[in-house]
Amino acid sequence: MKQGPQVIGALSRAPSAADGRGVVRRANLAVLLRLLRDAGPRSRARIAEETGLPKPTVTSLVAELAGLGLVREGVARREGSVGRPGALVHLDGRDIAGVGVEVSTSYLHVIALGLDGETAFESRTALAAGRAGAGAVLDLVAAAVRDCLAALDAAGSRAVGLTFAAPGVVDASRGMVSYAPALGWRDVPVVGGLRDRLGATALAVTVENDAKAGAVAEYLRARKADVHDLVCVTGERGIGAGIISGGRLLRGFAGYAGEVGHMPLGAGGRVCVCGRRGCWETVVGLGALLSDAADGTDAVHDDTVPLEERLGELRRRAAAGDPRTAEALRRVADGLGVGIALLADVLNPAAVVLGGYFSHIGDLMLDDVRTAVRDRVMAPDGGGCRVSLSTLGFTAAARGGAHLALDAVYRDPRLAAS
Amino acid sequence: MKQGPQVIGALSRAPSAADGRGVVRRANLAVLLRLLRDAGPRSRARIAEETGLPKPTVTSLVAELAGLGLVREGVARREGSVGRPGALVHLDGRDIAGVGVEVSTSYLHVIALGLDGETAFESRTALAAGRAGAGAVLDLVAAAVRDCLAALDAAGSRAVGLTFAAPGVVDASRGMVSYAPALGWRDVPVVGGLRDRLGATALAVTVENDAKAGAVAEYLRARKADVHDLVCVTGERGIGAGIISGGRLLRGFAGYAGEVGHMPLGAGGRVCVCGRRGCWETVVGLGALLSDAADGTDAVHDDTVPLEERLGELRRRAAAGDPRTAEALRRVADGLGVGIALLADVLNPAAVVLGGYFSHIGDLMLDDVRTAVRDRVMAPDGGGCRVSLSTLGFTAAARGGAHLALDAVYRDPRLAAS
Repeated sequence: MKQGPQVIGALSRAPSAADGRGVVRRANLAVLLRLLRDAGPRSRARIAEETGLPKPTVTSLVAELAGLGLVREGVARREGSVGRPGALVHLDGRDIAGVGVEVSTSYLHVIALGLDGETAFESRTALAAGRAGAGAVLDLVAAAVRDCLAALDAAGSRAVGLTFAAPGVVDASRGMVSYAPALGWRDVPVVGGLRDRLGATALAVTVENDAKAGAVAEYLRARKADVHDLVCVTGERGIGAGIISGGRLLRGFAGYAGEVGHMPLGAGGRVCVCGRRGCWETVVGLGALLSDAADGTDAVHDDTVPLEERLGELRRRAAAGDPRTAEALRRVADGLGVGIALLADVLNPAAVVLGGYFSHIGDLMLDDVRTAVRDRVMAPDGGGCRVSLSTLGFTAAARGGAHLALDAVYRDPRLAAS
Repeated sequence: MKQGPQVIGALSRAPSAADGRGVVRRANLAVLLRLLRDAGPRSRARIAEETGLPKPTVTSLVAELAGLGLVREGVARREGSVGRPGALVHLDGRDIAGVGVEVSTSYLHVIALGLDGETAFESRTALAAGRAGAGAVLDLVAAAVRDCLAALDAAGSRAVGLTFAAPGVVDASRGMVSYAPALGWRDVPVVGGLRDRLGATALAVTVENDAKAGAVAEYLRARKADVHDLVCVTGERGIGAGIISGGRLLRGFAGYAGEVGHMPLGAGGRVCVCGRRGCWETVVGLGALLSDAADGTDAVHDDTVPLEERLGELRRRAAAGDPRTAEALRRVADGLGVGIALLADVLNPAAVVLGGYFSHIGDLMLDDVRTAVRDRVMAPDGGGCRVSLSTLGFTAAARGGAHLALDAVYRDPRLAAS
């Protein structure tokens, strides 16, 4: 019988010896913490019963989690509970927080969330990122993060990690934003830049694509409805997607998954910012809608006017029966339908959520999009895919980023060690 | 502090109370079994050290796995080992097997693999599945499976599960092949049909799409090269894909993921079997190549001649400089390049493997395909995606199916209980 590397594996991957010592102990700590998160406070006896772990092991795991400041033992106050509550182990979200930062073309958003998902800090700064340059933006980010950390400190909490989300291709392994055309960034070393500005801090910083971070925030809602496969399409000038598959954020081999804006959907059409023709975002991006809807001198192209107002003007024209506006919206809806159908053929998501500019005007397109998806997808009834508009607004990416930072602790509770 | 369902979760999903009692014990059994598979035989002391589990727990887990016939304790014979080997725990693959069955348009393939991945049984039956009808095909499958089970029994082994792979859309939850146009099947109850034919047997039968099962087999090779994100495109009349993402088979919400043959890539073109226009398989499917390369009366369209011979004829024409053949190959290559670029934008795989008819003639297209992918993918250098031809031939789907059956045991070793 062959052994070792010759043993043909299967799809199940496990923590293995290569992960270092104590891997199962660490995994059991994580299982216990997530059990408390997902199923609520419970006694040690019940944990032992449910997990099949011996009681002394549960006692030892709970003690380690308590030492890390992640759980407390005590009488839980649960609304609606009947009778005298016993001594329960429950999450202790007060002492640690995950931080999410989003830099978009027009704002900087910082959110800190406790282990329990409650907002511990939030700030928003207007920003002309494209004009400011990467160095100035990182200065502003560092200042906002410093404020956040000080506020957490004052509340007796501390950050265990920070996720920096930007609209572009990121290289998480090198801590870089590789290419963010909307910001005018190329190979910006975000992690190093923040480390320099924040000084020596134990804070682990990760770089993430904004659509992926936003998808995490959308998923946290969707999972309550038992949806674990979804695609979040974010529409601005460019189009990006965050893909959740089987409850996991799909990153791909080098983190480039979700670059759907450049899917080649046809030979002709407008030239894309990437230099090619036929990219999806040349059909459904904000620029395509505005160009189709109005000449270049029209006020809807004036980017000193807030986007919501300009889209509001298009809504008025559509309501007034303007044929050019209607045709422009129909074209974008058709393009969305084709692209979403394609994504549904590949990924079979239960839900597609449209964010960014779509959340402001997508209601006028939604019927056409849904029809196109139903008509174009191979699987019956569009594979069960429901298309809807995002309701998270501008907070999605920062919120998702904060959750990603916390998720590291839910995977390895020892990361919370101060 | 909110608790229970209000606690906003994160991406990490854990076995939870809902999974029933003893979930951690079961997970630890699985971790230990996979450790032995992936890292080779080792002593109980070393397992305790590596996993962080107490020694008595390891002893108890090993005893349970041994009782299930999955591991043995003893002196392992390992080639190249130096010195006196100690008492090691190692996989015992002799007593259980996973069975994979593939039904294609032209053959029925059965493979049984031991827990260690060694082939325990293999058979191949010629079959005109489209003409035979589902009932007759299931009769043949049942006969071949009976032979397989008898052979395993004679060798002192037994099957723990069977995966039935077919070229079409399957509904695993209902045990059905929903739609397999190549076989002429619609809503064929495979699991029920086999249960009726095989009689009362404890054998767990699962239905799987052939491209997905094939992708599993390809992944078992790829993972040795540390590739965990790959797309396997299988080309016949239709085009299907199996997607492995982060080491996991991507199924999507209802199991329809990978229906790439019907990705809408353009408005015009041939009418697809699905009734739409613009589907990818109308450009790169076998029918498209043959129609582009030769008139309908040409011998390459004669499907009583084995496909390899007809493709061999096209190779000869291409080598002789026939311009129509060259143009037909170039068109398919271009279409492959566009579709693969699109998949690379969405999924960012490290590898795309071309199987089915591509493995017989794709070498003549590969340079063009690679160029198109490099040129069209948004991420630099095609996101690192390498395109290659499958070398597994016709065994991929049955082999992958057998591994999927075994994988269930690697996830829950107690399934091996007889």
